[in-house]
Parts: sequence; structure tokens; C-alpha cells
Amino acid sequence: MKNIAILGFGVVGSGIARVLEQNAAEIARAVGDEVSIRYILDLREFPDSPYADRVIHTIDPILADPDVACVCETMGGSHPALEYSLACMEAGKSVVSSNKEVVANFGDLLLRKAKEHGVSYLFEASVGGGIPLIRPFLTSLVCDRVTEIAGIVNGTTNYILTKMRDEGRDFGDVLAEAQRLGYAERDPSADIDGIDAKRKIIILTALASGILPEDGDVYAGSIRNITPGDIEAARALGGVLRLIAQTKILPDGRVAACVTPMIVMAPHPLANVDGVYNAVSVTSPVTGDILYYGRGAGSLPTAGAVISDVTAVLSGAAKAELAPVFEKKSGAVIPFGEQSFPFYIRTQGSEAEIRELLETVTDTVIPLGGGAFETGEMTAAEAERVLPEAVKIPILR
Amino acid sequence: MKNIAILGFGVVGSGIARVLEQNAAEIARAVGDEVSIRYILDLREFPDSPYADRVIHTIDPILADPDVACVCETMGGSHPALEYSLACMEAGKSVVSSNKEVVANFGDLLLRKAKEHGVSYLFEASVGGGIPLIRPFLTSLVCDRVTEIAGIVNGTTNYILTKMRDEGRDFGDVLAEAQRLGYAERDPSADIDGIDAKRKIIILTALASGILPEDGDVYAGSIRNITPGDIEAARALGGVLRLIAQTKILPDGRVAACVTPMIVMAPHPLANVDGVYNAVSVTSPVTGDILYYGRGAGSLPTAGAVISDVTAVLSGAAKAELAPVFEKKSGAVIPFGEQSFPFYIRTQGSEAEIRELLETVTDTVIPLGGGAFETGEMTAAEAERVLPEAVKIPILR
Repeated sequence: MKNIAILGFGVVGSGIARVLEQNAAEIARAVGDEVSIRYILDLREFPDSPYADRVIHTIDPILADPDVACVCETMGGSHPALEYSLACMEAGKSVVSSNKEVVANFGDLLLRKAKEHGVSYLFEASVGGGIPLIRPFLTSLVCDRVTEIAGIVNGTTNYILTKMRDEGRDFGDVLAEAQRLGYAERDPSADIDGIDAKRKIIILTALASGILPEDGDVYAGSIRNITPGDIEAARALGGVLRLIAQTKILPDGRVAACVTPMIVMAPHPLANVDGVYNAVSVTSPVTGDILYYGRGAGSLPTAGAVISDVTAVLSGAAKAELAPVFEKKSGAVIPFGEQSFPFYIRTQGSEAEIRELLETVTDTVIPLGGGAFETGEMTAAEAERVLPEAVKIPILR
Repeated sequence: MKNIAILGFGVVGSGIARVLEQNAAEIARAVGDEVSIRYILDLREFPDSPYADRVIHTIDPILADPDVACVCETMGGSHPALEYSLACMEAGKSVVSSNKEVVANFGDLLLRKAKEHGVSYLFEASVGGGIPLIRPFLTSLVCDRVTEIAGIVNGTTNYILTKMRDEGRDFGDVLAEAQRLGYAERDPSADIDGIDAKRKIIILTALASGILPEDGDVYAGSIRNITPGDIEAARALGGVLRLIAQTKILPDGRVAACVTPMIVMAPHPLANVDGVYNAVSVTSPVTGDILYYGRGAGSLPTAGAVISDVTAVLSGAAKAELAPVFEKKSGAVIPFGEQSFPFYIRTQGSEAEIRELLETVTDTVIPLGGGAFETGEMTAAEAERVLPEAVKIPILR
């Protein structure tokens, strides 16, 4: 019998309990032993739960119990998730997390602590829900050098943008509906302003490069100001408007990460990702382009990802695999203004004048009519400088 | 220094040497030591290769060398790949393979031998080239119960069908071009008659269910008889014609696997997989639907997959992970005739008459005009019995 503890009995934490019951035989086979929940740490009581007797309100019993080898941190938020995770690892316990905020903010510290104490810190569930995405970086792709990642990593915004396109409705209207249906939070800012996606691209950047960008160094664009006109323009151009999280790892080791609405052109596999689905494409010289696609959220898929990490810890596999090293490094993260993209640009004024302005910063300027242009590559800062008033949307090919 | 041997210095074998050079630092970091090629077994000499001095023509020096911990079998074909792999494992060496034929035909025997001798037999490169596809079954999805897999696992046929659709050309014409361009072999039968795809779906079925179907028990349909008319019909129906490898794992443990041209309806993610790309969708109750997409072949991607297995062996991770168990089991594989699909049917005759025939075996019959019908589910045998002369193509939704 192997015992685990769950920190936070919310959507993901309670999903873990369900999956442990539902797939007990498969999990026992993979671990080589039965897996049992010994403690559930939560502020609340759960008198009607079959696990009522395991609920505790302080971390101490978990830290003191030598029979708990693995702790699932599914609390969300930075604090006290950080302090609890560090304390568990200091007590010799491996920690597996679904908490993208704590991994994005403190992944360097958490992984150092794991190494110091000879335990594992795993976080498959922090990006892409149930899509097996993190482990391949540490196993299948470990021998390759990832050069680029582009993903749709937030289901709420993708649902809104898909609805806006399919039904020609405007942002506020679709957001209100998504809130009614439970696809968007009452305070939707973390999703629609790209904050959730930013945390995820920070984690993926660190996995691919070793550099953990600071939150403040990564631009996060919002979809609040996207109009049906922008979406129609994307369609006219042969693409689709999506909130894209992107990172490029330069040959000199620096990274260029951002979250921004982009027009994804039709041949790109991300152009076909609709609704609440997530997808992440990874480019590397040996493997070429690969894409992972699936449900990026939800109680069971995310809990399943947590349990795949639990299995890796309890079977011993995690110990043999390469543990990632994350490092915060000033100067290694290229600001958004210095990142280059081809752009879709729409503005008022004479075509000849706009063209002339654009040609000061890029070689290719294709007028699309109606004050719209497709351009060659220029930096976000250059685009802002020559046409501060224009709608400017990067194009992903 | 860790030493490996390569059996077969063809497209994949020589790719391994290139990737080992190109990514030496990453590989050393993952393994914890440098990796060096000590032997290359091939019938040919390679006098101009930097590895000329490692080329040998019998397996014996590899078997006798205690410093070789891992052998890469990239020979292709069943024999002598099988005998060499068994001999290596008997000598205490782990074997990693890119050879789908030997895994599909003898995976049960090979995995038993590995277990007997406390070594690993891994085959990430046997399906989907560089797409990390096999390992997730043994790690991320190990706690789930896969119920269905559907994939485009042969790039040659997908290239031909994509060209036929995009350019309205007929099969023979596009095949001849693919042969000129090197996308199809001079004898294209293994690809276009579904034999290659069948081996891959046999392997995926075994990973998902534990049952290794016999080659003769899995139907493989060809794309030879696909006409521009069929492709146009798929488009009219809102789908796309693709060679699909599919398997379903029934609650009673039996499996229904097949390879057949299907009309993939637009919302299905496989409907967007064009050209030489491969994609595999996997359905399981906890994780939901996930899809892996990428280049399913090529020297470097396939070699990269082999090296990810080498890394798993040499780092010790493979030993901790669950080794799959494959079993051949008579009666566990449902014949194609007993498998049910919705169908696209096109034939001659009066609409009323055809409708009446179809309604003896299915509840839903939708006339599409021009002698074509969309039907509800019926078995392949029922479709054959009521309309032996008709074009009958399963529909994938």
C-alpha cells in the first residue's frame, strides 16, 4: 500500500479521488502496489464525502508521516502552495502539482529544492490538462533542442473566439453566455487578458530552454478588444483569429515569449483548433513539428495528469528521468517590443501614405483594401511607432 | 561512456549516427554519460563513412561484448531481426526497435524475452516516426483505459489522397508522381494496400489492450480503387477520404481493429491531416480525446525516437516504467465483417429499392441523390450481403 496526500480538495483534488477509485486496478498495476489517500488538506470540512475522516486543516500531520511518499498540490495560487510544497520536499516527499501559478512563479526554487532533497517535483497537469505534454519534453524530446512552441492553451478564450467567428457575435455577448454556461469565470480577467496563458507559456519556455521568464517580462495580450471586424478580416486573409501563446528559443540561448491574439493562417495545424480544445505545437530540428491536441482542462483529465505523475514517482520512473532545471536569468528574455512578426494592420488614411510609413520598417506591404494591409516581418515596437493608432495583429504561418 | 550497437545501417540506422553527433550534449545530459556507437552490423561495407571501422557482419561480437548495454534494431523485416533481437536480450542487452513488422508479428515473444532476462524491449520509433506516441501509453495514459484509437499512420497514402482531392487527379497518376518524388516505393503495395498501416494498428491495439492481433485477423483495405468520384462524394458529404487505421477495445476485452478507407467528417480532428503528416487520436474515459500529430516517417525523426528509447534504457527510466505485456489470444479479435460503421453507399438502381434493402439492416437511410446514401450503423458483412455491388465506405465522425 502506498499513501498519498492531497492539498486542496477542489475540482482537481476531488477528481484525483474519483480517478483513484475508478481506475484502481490500472493504477495498482502501474505503481506495483495499491494507492490510497491518507490525508486531504483543506480549509473546509466535507462531512458527506467518503473521505471525511481523512480531511485535515494543517500540513503538519502530512510532514510528520513517513508513510506518505507523494503529495498532490492542487490548491492553486502561489501561497501557501509554495510554502507547503517546499516543506513537503524538505520532509523527503515528492510533490506533484496542477498549479500553473506556483510553477510559473517559483518553478526554479521548487526544482532546486527537489534536487537538494533527492525527491521529484512534477507538474504534468499544469499545462494542457490531460494532454501528455510535459513528460515528452523530459523523455521523448530530451535529446532534441526545441526551437519554437506555439499553442492554444486557454480553452475559455478559444471558445469565445470560435463562437464569435461561427455566429458573428460580439465579444461581450459571447463572454456573458460563456459565463452563464460555466466556461468563463465571473471575473474572467485571468483567461481573457492572457494571464493564464502567460503562466503556461512561461512553463513551456522553461522546459524547452531552462530559462524561467519572470511574469513581468512576458507580454500578455487580451482578447477584450477583438471585434467581429477583426475576425472577419482574419477569415478574408485565409486564417482564423486565436489567442496564441508562443515562445522561440534563439541560438544564443535567449528566449522570446509572448501571449497575443494572432491570425493563424489555414495551413498551420493550430488553425483547426476550435472551441474549448487546447493544442500545442513544438518544433525541433530532429523531430520536426509535432502537435498535441486535447481537452486542456476539466476535473478528470487534469486529475488523470496528476495521477500519471504520482505513478511516475511511486514506480521510481521519475527518479531515473532527467529532472528539469529552471533558472531566472536577467537579460535572457527578449521584450515583446523587440519580437518580430508579420502583421495584419488596419487603419484610417490614404493607402499610399500608410504604405510609405510601413515601408520604412518592412520590405513587404500588401494592401488588402479597406485600409487593411498584410506586412512582412517587423518588430512590435516598430509597428507601434509607425502606426500607433492602427489595429495590429501578428500573423502565424 | 556508454556503448551501443546498431543493427542495419540504412535510413534509420545512419540517422541515429547523425543525431548522436548533432545532439551529443543533450543526449549526454539525459543519459548522464556520453553515448558512443561501438558496432554497426550490416551486410554492406561503408568505406567512406567515419564509422567504417565499427562495421561488422555477424552479430557475435555484439553478443560477446559486455560493454554494450543497448542495441538498436533498425533492420526492418521479421528475419533475422527477430533472432538477433532475442539473442541480444538473452545476452543481457536491452533492444530498441524501429521495426514495425517484427513488433507486430512477434511483439509478444520479444516482450516475454525481455522480462525473462530483466532487460527492456522498446519500440517508440515503430509507429508515428518522431511523434511521441508509444511512451505516453506506458506513462501518461497508463492509469487510464483506452477505448478507441483512430489514426492516419501512413504518410504515402495520405499524400496520394490529399493530392487526388486538391488536384482532382486519379489514383494511378498521383501514385506515379509520388514514386518519382520518392514518397512512394517502386513496389507500393505495403503502403497503398494498408499493410504498413495494419502493422501499426496491431501495435497500438496491443498497447491499449494487451492483445496482439494476428496479422491475418486484421482487415487491411486498399486505396487502389478509390476514384475521384469517391473523393468528391466525401467532400459533398462534408468530409474527406482518408486511409484510417482504427481499433476499439470493447468492455469485454475483445478488440475490433481494421485498416480501411473512410470518410472522415469535418469536425473530427483527423479530417484536417493532410499530405505526408500522420496523426493518431486516442480516446479514454479519464483523459478524453487526445490527438498526436507530426511527421510519421523520415530518417531524423525516426532516429530521434530510437534515441529517446536508448536514453530511457541507459538512464534507467525504462526499467522503472511499466513494461507492456502483449498476448496473442484466439477469439479476442473481432473479424471485420462483424464490425459496425455508418456507411456512405453508392450504387445503381431505383432509390426506393436500395432504400428498402438498406432498411433491412439499419434504421437510418438518408438518400444523397445520384444513387448515393448515408446510412446508420450496420456491420461490414451486412452491407456486403445486401448490396454486394455497391461502393461502401465507412464514415468516421
